[in-house]
Amino acid sequence: MYTLLKQFLINNMKVDEGELDVFCKRFRHKTTKRNEILLQIGDVCPYIYFVNSGCLRIYMLDVNGKESTRFLVTEGRFGTSFPSFTLQEPSLAYIQSIEPSDVLYISHYDFNKLFDDFPGWEHSYRIGLQMDYIASIKRIESLITMDAKQRYQSLMETNPALIQRLPSKIIADYLGISQETLSRLKSKK
Amino acid sequence: MYTLLKQFLINNMKVDEGELDVFCKRFRHKTTKRNEILLQIGDVCPYIYFVNSGCLRIYMLDVNGKESTRFLVTEGRFGTSFPSFTLQEPSLAYIQSIEPSDVLYISHYDFNKLFDDFPGWEHSYRIGLQMDYIASIKRIESLITMDAKQRYQSLMETNPALIQRLPSKIIADYLGISQETLSRLKSKK
Repeated sequence: MYTLLKQFLINNMKVDEGELDVFCKRFRHKTTKRNEILLQIGDVCPYIYFVNSGCLRIYMLDVNGKESTRFLVTEGRFGTSFPSFTLQEPSLAYIQSIEPSDVLYISHYDFNKLFDDFPGWEHSYRIGLQMDYIASIKRIESLITMDAKQRYQSLMETNPALIQRLPSKIIADYLGISQETLSRLKSKK
Repeated sequence: MYTLLKQFLINNMKVDEGELDVFCKRFRHKTTKRNEILLQIGDVCPYIYFVNSGCLRIYMLDVNGKESTRFLVTEGRFGTSFPSFTLQEPSLAYIQSIEPSDVLYISHYDFNKLFDDFPGWEHSYRIGLQMDYIASIKRIESLITMDAKQRYQSLMETNPALIQRLPSKIIADYLGISQETLSRLKSKK
């Protein structure tokens, strides 16, 4: 149950085996169904998730009520509606498990206690946060500076498995292109 | 020269007066002209800046070569081409001082040494990073979920001074709306 989280910690933090167990036991465990909604828009996000298997989607509704995918979170990564979880304010996004998923989760209070109880966590969380922030900026950059073909090629380079395993509708939405364009780009490979 | 940076540190970090001076002296100082380019696209960003006065603009070129403003950094805030500075890779964005500005700056190497030499800095930088990451997500959210009028009203609530002091072209671009729409929204106030 904690294998991937332990691996994540060993890769990113100076901890001994005993501390690893104490750290991991702060997290609770659940399995989710395909398309299960874990957070509604307007609710304060109580948890940050760590994905053991499956995929979480964080998405919003645009001005016309159309779904717009902000992030896709796969195995071995943390994910949440970050502004809502961090500031404990109503969320502008849904969290949905787009595949049947196996996740660990921890409350806002317990998550913040990790910083007090495990001094090495501050450093490794800061490094992870930098990477998430960079991913978010690169997302904005790619939406602004790349055309459909370049965005598709970029995803093919960084996460080709995602294109295979998720529905075309979600991938097209994530890339900000139409399903027809995605289908055309796929057939050219 | 270090007044604003010291205030920032006192607000965000446990430090005594002696440490504050040592910390601040790691930064160098310069003044910039209106529209001076501090970083070119394609160069590795060597510095992170702290703005004493004035305003830095981080902007990219879209697929049609049109300027697209990613961030505006005003007094008392840190700013850089974050992916390029953090990963020391070529930048996809320019940094420009859009007003005559007074800034402090520090190299990538010296910035990372701050984490070793000032243990409290890891915590306060993490908190600042969270706020920058949230600002970036809220930027994406507002571009997706709000129409022109809502985005303008949101900026009026969070940073009305910016609308007064910067050229309409920059504000319109930052909000992702046309100058005509911005002018119409301004006249309605």
